[in-house]
Amino acid sequence: MKKIITISRECGSGGRQIGKQLAEKLGYSYYDKELIDRVAKESGLAKDFIEEQGEHITGSLLFNIASNMTYAGMVFGGNMLPLQDQLFVVQSDIIKDIAAKENCVIVGRCADFILRDVPDSLHVFIHGNMENKAERAVKEYGFAPEDVEKTIRKRDKARANHYKYYTDYEWGKAQNYDMTLNSSTFGIEGCVNLLYDVATKE
Amino acid sequence: MKKIITISRECGSGGRQIGKQLAEKLGYSYYDKELIDRVAKESGLAKDFIEEQGEHITGSLLFNIASNMTYAGMVFGGNMLPLQDQLFVVQSDIIKDIAAKENCVIVGRCADFILRDVPDSLHVFIHGNMENKAERAVKEYGFAPEDVEKTIRKRDKARANHYKYYTDYEWGKAQNYDMTLNSSTFGIEGCVNLLYDVATKE
Repeated sequence: MKKIITISRECGSGGRQIGKQLAEKLGYSYYDKELIDRVAKESGLAKDFIEEQGEHITGSLLFNIASNMTYAGMVFGGNMLPLQDQLFVVQSDIIKDIAAKENCVIVGRCADFILRDVPDSLHVFIHGNMENKAERAVKEYGFAPEDVEKTIRKRDKARANHYKYYTDYEWGKAQNYDMTLNSSTFGIEGCVNLLYDVATKE
Repeated sequence: MKKIITISRECGSGGRQIGKQLAEKLGYSYYDKELIDRVAKESGLAKDFIEEQGEHITGSLLFNIASNMTYAGMVFGGNMLPLQDQLFVVQSDIIKDIAAKENCVIVGRCADFILRDVPDSLHVFIHGNMENKAERAVKEYGFAPEDVEKTIRKRDKARANHYKYYTDYEWGKAQNYDMTLNSSTFGIEGCVNLLYDVATKE
């Protein structure tokens, strides 16, 4: 039985939709935008800033600092870290806190890395073929059709940079996850059912 | 229903064992060492050379040549290509030939790339945690315990180089496969059962 499921995903792959449906099917809490709200509330950082910066950061490695300090004092008290790094520290602590208290599905936010040593967790990466991702991005996110592929690549590049910055690992490398799935191969429902079976086994 | 299953795997991850058991469970043919024998027979290349070089090559990209020529004339007749590249061409043609004729599980040999556009195929990558891989490598392959991790890394580096050389893609990158699995998470039997379920669905 897997109690904590993290989902990392390519833009347009339907990973968020899979996470939401999986959480419903399992009766687990679901965190994504909801997580942002909580971060905003607890940190006092502006919600718009968090939404914009939460997964789109470039730069050098900070995780060792982030994982070994209490943000309340060192970060906010002394104002030692850039705002985007404060955000990561706050998000990490909140993600750990959630995972310690309840069964949940968490989408994005480097949750796979933050919770990598948590027992009964399942770390998943969802990707897809460009044709399907582009169609979904236009239809569901309202991306402009004329440069949808470019926009998707740009988003994924930002996610990969953000992941590398905070974890020093390669985003989308099989070895970082328990399981990766191509949503074009299995479909959204197929991925949900497959992950449900895996999560509920034993 | 998936008729062709390719398995790429980290050294010591149990990927070959998973492939063999999956083939038995599905009633499919299994190709690995057996493929080497067939390559040797059909190409006239020495079996020892093939066994040694089949997955351990470094250098620049050849696939465009390999996929667009008939090896019988251009390669062997004119002796235009290095021996290791001749081998790849022969292996590719044999893998395509097998996949066209029978349901099968093929382990290694860049089969995922060679058969990437074949309908009803499932391309899988198996990896594992170093502790489990090391234990398996010592026990089952007789690797020396004192430098087993180094030997595993060296083997995987050679596989990654070989894959990059012939496909121009990154070995172990989730996006190259329909599904990747950590055998330390699911166990050998767990991986076999999971893949069996996926392969027999629909």
